[in-house]
Amino acid sequence: MVILGIDPGSRYCGYGLLEVQGRRIVAAGCDVINMAREKDLLKRLDMLYIAIDGVMEEYKPEVAVVESMFFQKHIRSIFTLGHARGVILLAIARHKIPLQEYSPREIKKAVVGNGNASKQQVRFMVSKMLNLKSTQATDDAYDALGMALCHWHRMKFSP
Amino acid sequence: MVILGIDPGSRYCGYGLLEVQGRRIVAAGCDVINMAREKDLLKRLDMLYIAIDGVMEEYKPEVAVVESMFFQKHIRSIFTLGHARGVILLAIARHKIPLQEYSPREIKKAVVGNGNASKQQVRFMVSKMLNLKSTQATDDAYDALGMALCHWHRMKFSP
Repeated sequence: MVILGIDPGSRYCGYGLLEVQGRRIVAAGCDVINMAREKDLLKRLDMLYIAIDGVMEEYKPEVAVVESMFFQKHIRSIFTLGHARGVILLAIARHKIPLQEYSPREIKKAVVGNGNASKQQVRFMVSKMLNLKSTQATDDAYDALGMALCHWHRMKFSP
Repeated sequence: MVILGIDPGSRYCGYGLLEVQGRRIVAAGCDVINMAREKDLLKRLDMLYIAIDGVMEEYKPEVAVVESMFFQKHIRSIFTLGHARGVILLAIARHKIPLQEYSPREIKKAVVGNGNASKQQVRFMVSKMLNLKSTQATDDAYDALGMALCHWHRMKFSP
C-alpha cells in the first residue's frame, strides 16, 4: 500500500510517498514542486496539477493525505493557498483516491508526540522513523512525509 | 469574439457568454452549475471542472472574466471559495485563455453605474443591455453576464 502526503502551496508544494510493507514502512520518495520562479498564478496552478497528476500516475497511491484547513495571517495567503489546495483536491478526485485530512497539530502530535513541535523536530523525527540519511529534501517534503506517517499511525491504531 | 464570465462558487457557479458582433453585443448563453446536492467537496470540484471545461469546449471563448479576490466574513468560506476559484483558473490555464479580473465594485460600476448596486439592479441592467426576456436564470448567471459586460465596456473604452 502506498500513502501519498501532500503539503499544499502555490509556490512550493511538498509531497512524500510511504510504502507499507506488512508491519514495516519505507519512504518511496519525496520532493518539492517548485513553482516560485513562475509569476503567473494560472501557470503555477497548471504546473502544480501536471506535477501532482504525474506523481499519482507513477506511484499509484491508495490514499492521499492533505493538511486540513489552517489559518494564515493574511486573507490573501488563505485565498491563494485555497487555489492550490483546490487544484490538488481536483487531482485526487480525478484519480478516485480517497482523501484523508489531518490538522497540523494532529500531524505533529503523531510524528513528534507534541502538537506544537517545530519544523526541525518534525524533520528530525521523520528521518529517524524512516531511517533517512540527511538529504537535500526541504522541510516541505519532510512535512509531506510526516502527513503520510500520521495516517499510517492512525491506520495502525484504529480499531 | 466570445467573452466568458464566471461567478465562482463551490455550490453554485454562474457563467455567462457574450458574443461581440462588431459594435453589437449578444448574450450567447448563461446558466448555473449546481453542485449543492453533492456533499463531498472533492466531487463538487470535479463536477465544477468538468462543467467549466465543457462550456469552454463548446463556446471557445477568447477571454475569461472572473471576479477578483473578495472578502467574506468567514475564513472557511474564503478557503472553500479559493478551492473553487483554483479549479476554475486551472481550466482557464489548460485552455490557454487569457484571464481578466475585476472587483465586484468595478463590475457593478460598469453595469449599473454604481459600485454599490444591489443584485437586483445588476440583474435589471444586464437584462436591459442584452435585451433578455425574463428568464429562469438565477442571479449567479446574471452576475456572470455582468462580468463579461464589464470586460466588453473596458475593451470599448480602452485606448
